[in-house]
Amino acid sequence: MTGATGNDNEGLRAIVSELLDRVRALEDQVEIMQLVAQYGPSVDSGDGKATAALWTEDGSFDAVPFYEMRGRPDIVNMVHGPGHQRLIENGCGHVLTVPHIVVNGDEATGRSYALNIRWDPAADRFWVARVSANTWRWVRTENGWRIADRVNAPLDGTPGRREMFAAPEGSGRRDVPDAP
Amino acid sequence: MTGATGNDNEGLRAIVSELLDRVRALEDQVEIMQLVAQYGPSVDSGDGKATAALWTEDGSFDAVPFYEMRGRPDIVNMVHGPGHQRLIENGCGHVLTVPHIVVNGDEATGRSYALNIRWDPAADRFWVARVSANTWRWVRTENGWRIADRVNAPLDGTPGRREMFAAPEGSGRRDVPDAP
Amino acid sequence: MTGATGNDNEGLRAIVSELLDRVRALEDQVEIMQLVAQYGPSVDSGDGKATAALWTEDGSFDAVPFYEMRGRPDIVNMVHGPGHQRLIENGCGHVLTVPHIVVNGDEATGRSYALNIRWDPAADRFWVARVSANTWRWVRTENGWRIADRVNAPLDGTPGRREMFAAPEGSGRRDVPDAP
Repeated sequence: MTGATGNDNEGLRAIVSELLDRVRALEDQVEIMQLVAQYGPSVDSGDGKATAALWTEDGSFDAVPFYEMRGRPDIVNMVHGPGHQRLIENGCGHVLTVPHIVVNGDEATGRSYALNIRWDPAADRFWVARVSANTWRWVRTENGWRIADRVNAPLDGTPGRREMFAAPEGSGRRDVPDAP
Repeated sequence: MTGATGNDNEGLRAIVSELLDRVRALEDQVEIMQLVAQYGPSVDSGDGKATAALWTEDGSFDAVPFYEMRGRPDIVNMVHGPGHQRLIENGCGHVLTVPHIVVNGDEATGRSYALNIRWDPAADRFWVARVSANTWRWVRTENGWRIADRVNAPLDGTPGRREMFAAPEGSGRRDVPDAP
Repeated sequence: MTGATGNDNEGLRAIVSELLDRVRALEDQVEIMQLVAQYGPSVDSGDGKATAALWTEDGSFDAVPFYEMRGRPDIVNMVHGPGHQRLIENGCGHVLTVPHIVVNGDEATGRSYALNIRWDPAADRFWVARVSANTWRWVRTENGWRIADRVNAPLDGTPGRREMFAAPEGSGRRDVPDAP
């Protein structure tokens, strides 16, 4: 009887151990979604520190073709700079989609879109200044997931931009046969 | 042996108890995401009851500067009213992003975007009527999460709108030092 | 004592069993969100196989009024065809929102939006070609969730399109009383 209980416990322990892994995997996905969901509100509120805090201390952010930011102070300076401040004073939304996320241990990579939409008071409507491909690399830190690298580049037909969206390793594309 | 099993059980019980909290936290996030994902389809199908059911009975919805809705009947009336009905008959999409969500017990707050995009048959294209900042307060009810308060205000440069996107308490912005 | 341990184990086992169901439900939601998040990057990178791999082998995709695709080869051909290739060479983003998802065993249905936004080099801005209602049916396969059916139809006021967004069974709309 005691032995049976011991066996039972072993089975239960294995199930719980597997659950821990699955819950961790879910948390990674949701935390990264929520990290990305903070970019727009942070930058559109004009708060450079809140924006920079989404990155690692030495995180990188390329806003092609305007900025090559390296480290949090560069990001703070971009947000507090006259270009960005004028943008949000005139009315602007940085609208990001939920990324496709591939987690690999303490790193993750992803692909998503960012729209830059601006108010035109004369036309009484907004206009879409940019639709950009985004690639991301996130890292797990002791304070949770942070952005290590982000590249944002407008989908304006420039060669090479579409390749940013290439399917990662392990996607199901190999299961699809060549056309006859 | 029996004692060891007892000890083991205690450890397992603690792990399972922690798992319950983590799963609850994930469910909160996903349920709120899914609650918000229903707003657009509900309102664009013209179904006032389905829309109002996303709120608590006395929930509040400010669609600045047009509506100050208090309670579900106000929301039903807005959706069934001639203004909204004409909008969707002419072709319109209420496109919302996934919010940044901060859960605190049985309440949660969040920030996100809402786009209002309309069909222009003469130009054979859509146009962006509004890009709005949204703030949310959700509450846990016996039927799941519901919207208690939502404010939707266009990002057209009006002072005060950008502050809607201010980072909540506990965000990482304090970790970023002042610029030198 | 041993009996008490046995009882305890039974309680623990019941809790873990419930946790397994809840974690499975969360995984379903997140996996389907992530499946949908791959459509835009796949199609905008021009990769027909990566796109088709998101569907089941005999999956269906109606891009109203242009395409009625049945099976993966049809989807590959659409992506590799001159119409789509010209679109992405000129600059285009297929921007999808997170769907509202209702899982029912090994099937799920959902509703969401898809924007088709294109670069206009003469105007130095993007324009919104389409805002579409999307309905989805997903199925659980041995390789994870795949798209069984997707319908994408522009919200241009055409009668019937708004009904695509009708609230599914079990939504809270019945809790809202008729207006007085």
